[in-house]
Amino acid sequence: MGREKFLAGLAQMDSTGLWSDNKKEAGELIRRAAEEGASLVILPETADYIGTDFRRHAARVPGPVTDFFQEQAARYGIYLHCGSITRKTESGKLRNTSYVFGPDGSLCGQYSKLHLFDVEVEQGPSYHESAEIEPGDKIVLVDTELCTLGLSICYDLRFPELYRLMAKFGAGLLVVCGNFTADTGKTHWEPLLRARAIENTCYVAAVDQCGRKPGFQAWGHTMLIDPWGNILGQLEEKPGVLVGEIDMNRLGEIRGQLPSLANTRDDIYELKSNYMRFFEEGGNK
Amino acid sequence: MGREKFLAGLAQMDSTGLWSDNKKEAGELIRRAAEEGASLVILPETADYIGTDFRRHAARVPGPVTDFFQEQAARYGIYLHCGSITRKTESGKLRNTSYVFGPDGSLCGQYSKLHLFDVEVEQGPSYHESAEIEPGDKIVLVDTELCTLGLSICYDLRFPELYRLMAKFGAGLLVVCGNFTADTGKTHWEPLLRARAIENTCYVAAVDQCGRKPGFQAWGHTMLIDPWGNILGQLEEKPGVLVGEIDMNRLGEIRGQLPSLANTRDDIYELKSNYMRFFEEGGNK
Repeated sequence: MGREKFLAGLAQMDSTGLWSDNKKEAGELIRRAAEEGASLVILPETADYIGTDFRRHAARVPGPVTDFFQEQAARYGIYLHCGSITRKTESGKLRNTSYVFGPDGSLCGQYSKLHLFDVEVEQGPSYHESAEIEPGDKIVLVDTELCTLGLSICYDLRFPELYRLMAKFGAGLLVVCGNFTADTGKTHWEPLLRARAIENTCYVAAVDQCGRKPGFQAWGHTMLIDPWGNILGQLEEKPGVLVGEIDMNRLGEIRGQLPSLANTRDDIYELKSNYMRFFEEGGNK
Repeated sequence: MGREKFLAGLAQMDSTGLWSDNKKEAGELIRRAAEEGASLVILPETADYIGTDFRRHAARVPGPVTDFFQEQAARYGIYLHCGSITRKTESGKLRNTSYVFGPDGSLCGQYSKLHLFDVEVEQGPSYHESAEIEPGDKIVLVDTELCTLGLSICYDLRFPELYRLMAKFGAGLLVVCGNFTADTGKTHWEPLLRARAIENTCYVAAVDQCGRKPGFQAWGHTMLIDPWGNILGQLEEKPGVLVGEIDMNRLGEIRGQLPSLANTRDDIYELKSNYMRFFEEGGNK
């Protein structure tokens, strides 16, 4: 499935602790991307809030945050991937969750971050995301009229298994929403993203936070990569929109030339998941 | 297991269709690496012969080619990874096989390329390695006194499953012996190698062919990468030796900071192999 070609708009944000500011920034970037012709707009991780008290600011879903993104999708008639928001589940726990809304405003995808960031950078800060956040329990693909999206968030990028499974299951565009630290991003962001594109012969849209956050600098460098591993465009370290073309014919040509996705030695090693789903409303908590 | 620190010598060759020339070049590069203090020397893929008739020039093992490498290992008291040689199996088929000899000249590792290169580059040449070569049937790790090596050859690099399995099974140094084409290498070589190092928090030693081969230009750019993804050193496009330090303490520190290898979601996806072996003489055909 999928149109042959479409434009994707990657909106790099400098989210703060105030939803009112973040809403204004997201709205402005979505408008610019839509005006430039994007049929799919993607925001970064924790687009709604970045601060020191995720629990206090966690969103109720449905609620004002998802209502806003839903309205934006419908207003411009676009697919809108809201990056992620920190939300309270029915049991009162927190999850770091992506939502994708369709051109009519309907929910067409939802994914909670599988790998939580518990890291101690040498002579740098520590992170213990799992202290507050509960990890997801599904790998999620979203069929759209444009192409099939494979969803992922930030630290997930270090786990090639996830992307390989999504590519084997039909993803044409691998989405990575980040709030990557500059400490790790300066060495890890680009090679990992390009490797995911090359080894899976998929497009990769990587949308990052930028700016100063509590305790660290975010890396920025939002980029769109083609299935050959070429960087089609990238932003620097300020908020902005990158609009680039995704061409499913080009993807098919590259897979014809370089059939590595079909050449895995499934007789020698096996990679599988019993928790892999195309999104179904109500089915992907 | 493993010494804390040692030097590895990565010997980039421009192998031709003449074993006498290749033997001379390999001998010279091994000598230089040993003189610079390398305890492990690694050669590139098909070090013994690159030409248009692999079948006619395929080596018998044991035979003059492996005898030479065995003698070199013992002469300098080093571990010698001979890159790979094309050899005839007992059934008369060909395999692309790596041999590792220990400081006393004994065979301590053997691996046959799992993924064969069948690729058609756009406006470029075609390759059909599987027309002549039979693929391997084992993933192979080699325990040495220095560290545990994970073996791989060229096109294998596109398959993250292989490296993840070897890292999970104890590899500290992932070896990639290449005869990479410049057409693909200019975009794919570095990001894939750095990603294998970063995602698995392993050292990567990637030793390539350089120079003009029948039908293509080889890429060169032999490089040594640390487990943080930093390039410790690299060669350009001519034959030569790169000697660099491998430090198992540094590897442990990085894994302490960035425990992604331990953070895989084995409850959500499963990667396994029934064909994974520490080398046993006679056991890894």
